Amino acid sequence: MIWQSIASAKNASLIDLIPPRWRIKLSDVPPISRLRDFGGYICRFLNPQELEITNASSNAILAHIRSGEWGAADVTRAFCHRAAVAHQLTHCLSEVRFLDAENDAKALDEHLLQTGQPVGPLHGLPISLKDRFNIEGLESACGYVSWLGVRKDEASEGVLVKRLRRMGAIFFVKTNVPMSMLMGETSNNIIGSTINPYNRYLSAGGASGGEGALLALRGAPQGWGSDIAGSIRIPCAFNNLFGLRPSFGRLPASGMATSLPGLPTAGSVVGPMAADINALELAMKSVLDTSPWQDDVDVVEMPWRIEKLQSIRNRTSRRGERDGKLVFAVLDCDGHVRPHPPVQRGMRLVAKALLQQGYDVVEWSPPSHTEAVQILFEILGSTAGKEVRRAIDSSGEPPVSQLRGWYDNDDVEPSSSEDFWDLCDRRDRYRVEYNKYWISTREKNISKRQVDGVIMPVAPTAAVEEGTFTYYNYSAIVNFLDYTSGSFPVTFADRSLDLEAPDYVPIGPADEANWRAYQKDLFDGAPVGLQVMGKRFEEEKVIGLMEAISAALENYQPTI
Amino acid sequence: MIWQSIASAKNASLIDLIPPRWRIKLSDVPPISRLRDFGGYICRFLNPQELEITNASSNAILAHIRSGEWGAADVTRAFCHRAAVAHQLTHCLSEVRFLDAENDAKALDEHLLQTGQPVGPLHGLPISLKDRFNIEGLESACGYVSWLGVRKDEASEGVLVKRLRRMGAIFFVKTNVPMSMLMGETSNNIIGSTINPYNRYLSAGGASGGEGALLALRGAPQGWGSDIAGSIRIPCAFNNLFGLRPSFGRLPASGMATSLPGLPTAGSVVGPMAADINALELAMKSVLDTSPWQDDVDVVEMPWRIEKLQSIRNRTSRRGERDGKLVFAVLDCDGHVRPHPPVQRGMRLVAKALLQQGYDVVEWSPPSHTEAVQILFEILGSTAGKEVRRAIDSSGEPPVSQLRGWYDNDDVEPSSSEDFWDLCDRRDRYRVEYNKYWISTREKNISKRQVDGVIMPVAPTAAVEEGTFTYYNYSAIVNFLDYTSGSFPVTFADRSLDLEAPDYVPIGPADEANWRAYQKDLFDGAPVGLQVMGKRFEEEKVIGLMEAISAALENYQPTI
Repeated sequence: MIWQSIASAKNASLIDLIPPRWRIKLSDVPPISRLRDFGGYICRFLNPQELEITNASSNAILAHIRSGEWGAADVTRAFCHRAAVAHQLTHCLSEVRFLDAENDAKALDEHLLQTGQPVGPLHGLPISLKDRFNIEGLESACGYVSWLGVRKDEASEGVLVKRLRRMGAIFFVKTNVPMSMLMGETSNNIIGSTINPYNRYLSAGGASGGEGALLALRGAPQGWGSDIAGSIRIPCAFNNLFGLRPSFGRLPASGMATSLPGLPTAGSVVGPMAADINALELAMKSVLDTSPWQDDVDVVEMPWRIEKLQSIRNRTSRRGERDGKLVFAVLDCDGHVRPHPPVQRGMRLVAKALLQQGYDVVEWSPPSHTEAVQILFEILGSTAGKEVRRAIDSSGEPPVSQLRGWYDNDDVEPSSSEDFWDLCDRRDRYRVEYNKYWISTREKNISKRQVDGVIMPVAPTAAVEEGTFTYYNYSAIVNFLDYTSGSFPVTFADRSLDLEAPDYVPIGPADEANWRAYQKDLFDGAPVGLQVMGKRFEEEKVIGLMEAISAALENYQPTI
Repeated sequence: MIWQSIASAKNASLIDLIPPRWRIKLSDVPPISRLRDFGGYICRFLNPQELEITNASSNAILAHIRSGEWGAADVTRAFCHRAAVAHQLTHCLSEVRFLDAENDAKALDEHLLQTGQPVGPLHGLPISLKDRFNIEGLESACGYVSWLGVRKDEASEGVLVKRLRRMGAIFFVKTNVPMSMLMGETSNNIIGSTINPYNRYLSAGGASGGEGALLALRGAPQGWGSDIAGSIRIPCAFNNLFGLRPSFGRLPASGMATSLPGLPTAGSVVGPMAADINALELAMKSVLDTSPWQDDVDVVEMPWRIEKLQSIRNRTSRRGERDGKLVFAVLDCDGHVRPHPPVQRGMRLVAKALLQQGYDVVEWSPPSHTEAVQILFEILGSTAGKEVRRAIDSSGEPPVSQLRGWYDNDDVEPSSSEDFWDLCDRRDRYRVEYNKYWISTREKNISKRQVDGVIMPVAPTAAVEEGTFTYYNYSAIVNFLDYTSGSFPVTFADRSLDLEAPDYVPIGPADEANWRAYQKDLFDGAPVGLQVMGKRFEEEKVIGLMEAISAALENYQPTI
């Protein structure tokens, strides 16, 4: 059959584009039972210089290139090598342009040599992009066999890609996404499934799951994902990464493949992902400093407001006496599905660390998240996924198993505009209620300040077994509200600490199904990430809150 | 029949709320044939102090109150009186609260006396509001008999109303709107039709037509309208006023009655209207200085950016050498319906005045406006106006004549979500194309600068005979693009200058119908207003452009 040969040719082409010296013998890779975590294992394939480069932060890499210590071409080659190995271990890439990237980097080296000046603030920094971003010369198949074969041209590129390139970023890979791009896992019939590098039994999450696995293995110093119901934050939480879901209109999201063309509300946003938090600030600041609103009509003219970030930094525990210490709210459980023991422990750990630093920590009892996310999914499903179905059917490939139930239920009709507007109206009302609740927290804590950020799980699990991610309420509430949220690493599932609780009385069927999926041995080692949610367009503030939380975790002293 | 008695009781109640000494004997009012323009006529009903107060600008009124020269109660009473007469002449009001307003003003006077401080930047300024704005204690019938009888409570008020009141604004009237609120005229079965005070043969325009007539007669120093396809700019153009249509999300638009609940895109925006341009800056600045985004989730955190306005002021002709003179584009005709002779003359006048000041003036050949506005109306009509129909039918009243054709065509069904998303997708693409075209103008003028603002008609006519306004393409293109646009006065239709052209060859049927409607004697004296369009969120810039154009018109020296 034709689709299989197209898909496997694409898959093989990625390997062909990897220089033979970078290919690994998969039969040499130890079985999962002996090697659960690829984090250390990947290092054996890299030489010391490559390790030094690829273990460095974005800011360190930029500084080394600007000072002339590292050539951009050396940096690019090191990340190409590490990404190539990461892909062979986890299936995290969808496109590679190693040769072009090296040539781009050489041109930058030449420029720096000639002029003494970098081309821009990202001079020579390799940046990975989720497959949805169109790049000239590459495909954007996004997990659909039928979308293969179209090399995107320059006109198809969005404002973000053009701005990043102009600032000196090196594009060297695009990363794997699930068929439909609308899933918390990353699986398709072309590349296969992206594996969680911290725990090979589990999925890397999704939809920016290729990014998640690649960044976790330091195959790129930073990357860009997109998020319509959690697609940045889920893979960040599952891969021990930092990630930011900005509000719609803060960043340019043009020039991207989509399964929901024309969706007029609650749309997908793009955001940065990285293993170090400073990369997020660098990504946001550098892009906004290029005035992307001039070329992208959906972007609001809102420059990077360093004073907002600084104001949060001034309110961290040691310096917070004058401007008021930060007030955090915590939502341990949404009342519908209780997170698995590792996530619960992560929540407790964060709360204790924040209290130890002297921050205010209060409870969060907002309008029902469950009802809200239900409306969001009805909005996103209003056209009954016709574009997804068309993209699948065009090649004759079958849906991946996660889509099978939806796909086989072909009696779902698009709703009427009337129903669609009703959903939007309900969303409008909910957003108003939620904001009122948030403002009301002023009255509910000692310092009479509104809550600064809400700490919640991103998902009820620490990563997932492939095929089992179904509960989006923790992540998608942020999208429904169009708030800003940052995902940050907390800890790792630990079979000795996170015990099963067979006597647990479930809240309901969804909770029961989720609870039963927990097995301490299976999840052991999986990253536990959480998120902190700010209001709309509070990107600077949320990065500041993530910094404060990370510092609190770092300084945390367990008491007896 | 019941609806008639409800409607006429409401109508009569407005007159009842006018103190007897302010009532006028309508039989004494000269017939139109002898008195076309109420502008001078209204003054005979006011004493010298009332005239001095009501002829003053917003800023002058505020200064006089702050200095103690005028009491807020005196100011309020003067505007109540003038508004009461204006209503009797033109049917411009929908709600009055004269007594409450005077009491509110007295409380402010007391406060100022006691503390020496105004309560806020709008201390004592009477402000009129379109009927759509909910105010505690008043109805928001919006031209529907079935919506009468519900006095709004405090919880129904939107953020704008609360902020204005907190800053010291006095609410004393709400103004008439057409049944449906979706029309370029102002007519309903309760108040009747709002008359154009400059030319009683004609309509005041709509949907903020009550505002237009009231402000034209100086029954308020400034007011607020709303605009979904031209509803601020049409009555401004028809009533010799300044008005601003901001981009969606710049100002709080919560707490308003609507016929399109849930509309998820291309929504209505609110904006200020006034006879003097400085009132617009005052209105925008004062509201944005209250951080309305804290309480209205749809408002973007974008403070009033005085530096953007100042930058335009620095580029006016005398001072523009350093930063580059302003570049204006002009669109005389959209290629579909040619404006009437008075509007054409207005366009020529503005272009000549700008050239005389040394500005660059270029042509504007954008992607088709006709096609764009067609999509906009399909978006707004997606639910087949079900809410409008329900609101009409609930009382048994008939539709006003302007809605009759739509109303009788009851085989229109709501479209599917799929079709709706397709329309939204087409809008997205059009906005991208339009922005590209705008950016491309950089290459098309001598100074290599992008066009700063586009000058266009608001409507193809200088006001209209009631029942004939049907062509929204000049106004609604702004809404489709979500750009910022300001309407400004230019001149008046003049039977001796604006001759009919019976030999004119029409572009097509719509143009022919419009052209035939022109009669120089009928339109004589009607205001000619135009608009200048900036990009999204360029409210400060557009006010600066309006200032530059108005100054150019004021300084214009006709050449021989």
